[in-house]
Formats: sequence, C-alpha cells, structure tokens
Amino acid sequence: MAAARHSTLDFMLSATADCSAVFKGLQPIFQEQGMTETIHNWEDHGYLATYVSKNGSFANLRIYPHGLVLVDVQSCNDLSGGDVEQLLNKIEERMKELCHRNIKRVKRLPAIVRGDAIDKYWPTADGRLVEYDIDEVVYDEESAYQNIKILHSKQFGNILILSGDVNLAESDLAYTQAIMGSGKEDYKDKEVLILGGGDGGILYEIVKLKPKMVTMVEIDQMVIDGCRKYMRKTCGDVLDNLKGECYQVLIEDCIPVLKRYAKEERMFDYVINDLTAVPISTSPEEDSTWEFLRMILDLSMKVLKPDGKYFTQGNCVNLTEALTLYEEQLGRLYCPVAFSKEVVCVPSYMELWVFYTIWKKRTDV
Amino acid sequence: MAAARHSTLDFMLSATADCSAVFKGLQPIFQEQGMTETIHNWEDHGYLATYVSKNGSFANLRIYPHGLVLVDVQSCNDLSGGDVEQLLNKIEERMKELCHRNIKRVKRLPAIVRGDAIDKYWPTADGRLVEYDIDEVVYDEESAYQNIKILHSKQFGNILILSGDVNLAESDLAYTQAIMGSGKEDYKDKEVLILGGGDGGILYEIVKLKPKMVTMVEIDQMVIDGCRKYMRKTCGDVLDNLKGECYQVLIEDCIPVLKRYAKEERMFDYVINDLTAVPISTSPEEDSTWEFLRMILDLSMKVLKPDGKYFTQGNCVNLTEALTLYEEQLGRLYCPVAFSKEVVCVPSYMELWVFYTIWKKRTDV
Repeated sequence: MAAARHSTLDFMLSATADCSAVFKGLQPIFQEQGMTETIHNWEDHGYLATYVSKNGSFANLRIYPHGLVLVDVQSCNDLSGGDVEQLLNKIEERMKELCHRNIKRVKRLPAIVRGDAIDKYWPTADGRLVEYDIDEVVYDEESAYQNIKILHSKQFGNILILSGDVNLAESDLAYTQAIMGSGKEDYKDKEVLILGGGDGGILYEIVKLKPKMVTMVEIDQMVIDGCRKYMRKTCGDVLDNLKGECYQVLIEDCIPVLKRYAKEERMFDYVINDLTAVPISTSPEEDSTWEFLRMILDLSMKVLKPDGKYFTQGNCVNLTEALTLYEEQLGRLYCPVAFSKEVVCVPSYMELWVFYTIWKKRTDV
Repeated sequence: MAAARHSTLDFMLSATADCSAVFKGLQPIFQEQGMTETIHNWEDHGYLATYVSKNGSFANLRIYPHGLVLVDVQSCNDLSGGDVEQLLNKIEERMKELCHRNIKRVKRLPAIVRGDAIDKYWPTADGRLVEYDIDEVVYDEESAYQNIKILHSKQFGNILILSGDVNLAESDLAYTQAIMGSGKEDYKDKEVLILGGGDGGILYEIVKLKPKMVTMVEIDQMVIDGCRKYMRKTCGDVLDNLKGECYQVLIEDCIPVLKRYAKEERMFDYVINDLTAVPISTSPEEDSTWEFLRMILDLSMKVLKPDGKYFTQGNCVNLTEALTLYEEQLGRLYCPVAFSKEVVCVPSYMELWVFYTIWKKRTDV
C-alpha cells in the first residue's frame, strides 16, 4: 500500500507579515505546478491557501499575520520525493527574496511518512516524537495479552515493542546490566527470581555467572517464542529450552507464583522485576496500577532474603512525577525498605532511564 | 510569538476505503465545530476536505481510496491543545464505528510545534526526525564562523548546537571518553594536541590526568566564551583561563598552526581531532571536504610521534557510505597508517556514533 509523505517548510519572521504580499509572492509557484487553488482569508487571522494537484497531492500555505508562514505538502510516495523538495526549494528562495532580512528562522523537518507498512514513529515515554531507522517488520502478532512487534533497526538491531512501548533492542545490553545491579553483584551460587523478562536478556546474562538457580516467570509464551527466534543477540540460546542446568522458565502469571513461594517460605537472593510498565497480569485483585505495583513489591519482599536485593526499572528520567509516586509506594510496603537509583542511557530508548535497587532495612539493630 | 500546533491522526485500513462513506461519516464532526468546508473530489484519488474555523485553525481530511485516511489539524497554541485532542478523539471513535474491523492501524503522533521560540526539532545526522526535551534557549549567537546555540534539555543538560548540528551535551561524557581512547591511554606526562574542542570537554578531562602539555587550537573564541559560561559540567573551570599549568588554548585556525609545528618538527604523543563535521577553516586551500580532511590528517601525522595515536569522531553508524569514504582517505595519506574503530552511544545524539583511532604503521620492520 502506498504511504503518504508529509513535508513541511516553516518560516518565522522577525516582524508581522504582510500576508497579502507573501501570498501573492508565493501563489505563482503553486500555479506553475498546475495546482487548483482555494483561498480562505480571515482578515484577522491571515490566509490559508489550499492547492490541489491532479495526481492527488495537495499543499497548504498558511500565513499567520504575527509572522509565521507554514507550508505543508502531502503526496503519495509513488511520486518522487524530489519533486516536493524542488517545490519547497522554490518557496524558500522566493521567501528569501520577499522577506529578505526579516526571516528569523527557516525550518524544514524530515518528511513524515504516514500509513507506511513499516511504522518508524515510536514516541518516547515522555511523549516526544522520534523516528527510528526501522527497515523491516520482523514479527507482528497479537498474543492473549498484548501486541508483540519485533522491528529491525539498522543501528540497534531487532527491537522488541510490546503494545507500542519500546521494550528492548539487541543493542541494549546497558539495560540488562543496569537491572542486574551494574556489575556490582556476585550471582555465583545465588537464588534468583526474574519477574517477566520474556526477551531472555537477564536470564542469558545471569546464567553466564553460574548462579545456583534462576527462576523466570513470564506470562506470555509468545514473547518468548518471538525473542527466541529474533532477539538472539539478547537471549543467546537460553530460551531454546525452558529448563537448563541452573534455570527454569515458568509460563505463568507471576502473582500466584509469588504467593505460592511466599507461602512455602521460599527465599531468593535477588528478585529482578522486569515486568512491562503497564501491567498485563490476569489477576483480578489489582484495581489500580499503583496497587498492582505495591502488591508485586510486597510479595517480592516476602520472598527476598533479609540481605537480598530487588532490582527494577523505573521510568524515563523526565517523568519526575511518576518516579516520585513510585518512591512513595516504597514507603507503604509491609516492611521498611531503602532504595537507591541510577540513571542509565539505554541506546534504543532515546531518553535516559531510571533503575532502582531496593532492599529491606535491618530491623534487628 | 504564538506557535502553531500541528496534530495528525492516521488510519490504515485493511481494505480499499469507501471514500464517500468515510467522508459522509466524518463530515458532521467538523460541521458541529462550526467549521467551513471546502471539498475536492478527485474521482481516482479520493477526497480532500478542508475545514476552516473562525479562530484561525483549520483541518484537512484526506481520504485515499487504497485505504488511508489522514487527518491534520493546525491551530495556534493560544488555543488549548485539549480541544484538538477532543476533536481527534471523536474522529477516532467515529472511524471505529464506520470501519470497525477494517482498521489495521490507528496512529496519532505527538503534535508538532511549528514556529515556537524554542525549536525542539534537531534531526539526526542520518536525517531522522527527533524532538528534544528543550525547555530553554540559553545562548544563541552568530559568530564569524557559525551559528552557536546552547539549549537546555531537561534530561541532557545544556546542549551545544553548531550551525544546526548537535555537538555535545553536558550528559555526553561518553563522547569525550571515546575520543580520548576509551580509558585505555595513559596521558601522564604526555604531549597532546587538540584540534577544535571549543566546548572544553576533552581539555578538562585530559588536564585531570597530569599531561606534560596540552595545546588546544580552536578557531572560534565565541564557542569558548559560550561554553565557559553555559557548559560547565563539560568544561569545568578549564576555559576560565586560556593558559594553565599544563595547557594552552590558541584561538587560531588549526591549519597554519599544524604547518608551523610540522616545520618546527614539534611532535605529539596524541593528536585529537574534535573539529566540526563540516569544516569551517578559513584556509583557502581546501577545495572539497575530503581534501580538507586529508590535509588535516596528513598534517596531523607529520606532528605525531612514531608511536603516537590520533583520535577522532567519524560519523553516525548508519552513514556507511561516508564512513567508507573516510576510511578510503586513510589509505591515501603521505605515510601508511592503520586504524581501528569503536561504536559508542552518546546520550544526546539519538544515534550510535563511530570513533576512530589511527596510528602510523611501522616502516622499520
């Protein structure tokens, strides 16, 4: 299916615009292209001229009297993008003749591709627009829990995207290292519990460190299946079997598993929470995200040895309010805990990310 | 000056669109807003409906018959963005009623802010659109050589942008470490030459390592002045004086300086080329970027001790052609050289970056 290319060209003027003069100066450029014109003149709010061409492309010329001239061109991409660039070049030249030293800024953004089979736009957690260098849809399936996409980025390798959130790319060992304690922990002969972690990155890295036993509890078999096949730089061969010498993968909701372990008084040296930011548990008990998070934390503390550590990812560093709320939850657990945090650059995220280390405060002193 | 917010909402349909039915279904939503309608019907290429509102905002509804429905709304930001979001919500609901299971993808990008005093859009070197979390223009001046901007990013701190290229942010110690050899070099008692480097990052980090003498040659005093004031996380106090116990900063074009040193047979243990990607030398001799780069390389090799090392940044990892061309230049120097490269994640770049280490091949063996 043909996608549409949406190109923009913006002029900020240092003075109010003579709307009529700008309009009359640019009009011939569109007319030369054989485009049909429709004009709206607000008197108070300037001009909007719409130009329609026979091949289905169209342009908007919006002139704001306070000194803003915005041009949009939308065309189907079976047309050459070069034609549009030429049109915009002509407009830029003409504007420089018309407004000369009055132009404070000229801005031409990379064209936005809309409705392409390959979607390259995956906004950051703090809501900014970013275009990825995606060149292939490797995997795209709906599981019982979420949409699972694995997209190939030229620089980051394959990227796992769960329900629209960039989760992890093959370039992102920095994420896995951060959520394992940034190389400061000794996993040898330790008992480890991983909540989520379906991409296999944490499991793969910990197994190399000769732990006693790693238990990973991932709800979504399809994430494991997709990552085993397409995220091998991240998970190596660790997901080829759900059981290994020193690890087991349970395909289960982690809530009942945590409850079972708590009841059995099974304890871990490390609990690593790698669940998705938006919970997908099937447990009916949680009635808000924060309560769900607190339940996970409480249950995790119950299965954590007194000198054990709990690692988790927090949020992007810019969402300070969400981070503060999370930290408030830590003061509301059944047992007193302390925490530290670290800001890490995860290559594919395009934003800095906060990771938490949480431990039980000693009550015997 | 009021900026304009440009919002988009795109629907990809799994089948060809009944353009007329979609148009008639969505039309009332715009009419309810009291917007004036202009319709263009291509027969072969679908519909374009333009809706103009009294307050100066307008919308485009473009229906492509192959199954793409694109909505654009542009409004001045003294209007509440919430109104536009509500309009888009209504369109999304109506589309879901109209097309039901035929909708393959709904995509609403973060609104693009056009003509704002703070420009947040700084495309990557490989031409992708990225929005930064800029909240303040700290410095914006034209020097004799280039436009110098220092913008404040919430997560990256102050960012130095030279003629539109993101150069370095206060978060980017990773860049400075990479161009110094990634911690594998011993700078103690060494002679170091820095070409460019006006942000002071390299100088600041090397001076800590007790070199014998560092000479930095930066052409643009205004870059130094701006960074001394606003990039202090990067340069510390090192730019407060152009001379220190073990360093000097020359405000000069590096070409004549290199020629002078070559003539004097002054030699360095390390030459670090931190010049901007697009040359701004005033020397008249270069007639192409590649020849300029080769001249810099040749002159640098002349002042490099036989066992010395030359460090430089290359390009983003995706521009493979430019990287290959650069490596070809290395085979055309006056003396044989070898090189290695490293890919590094520089936080504020939003793309992986290649750094080079170059050294003279030994000819005595």
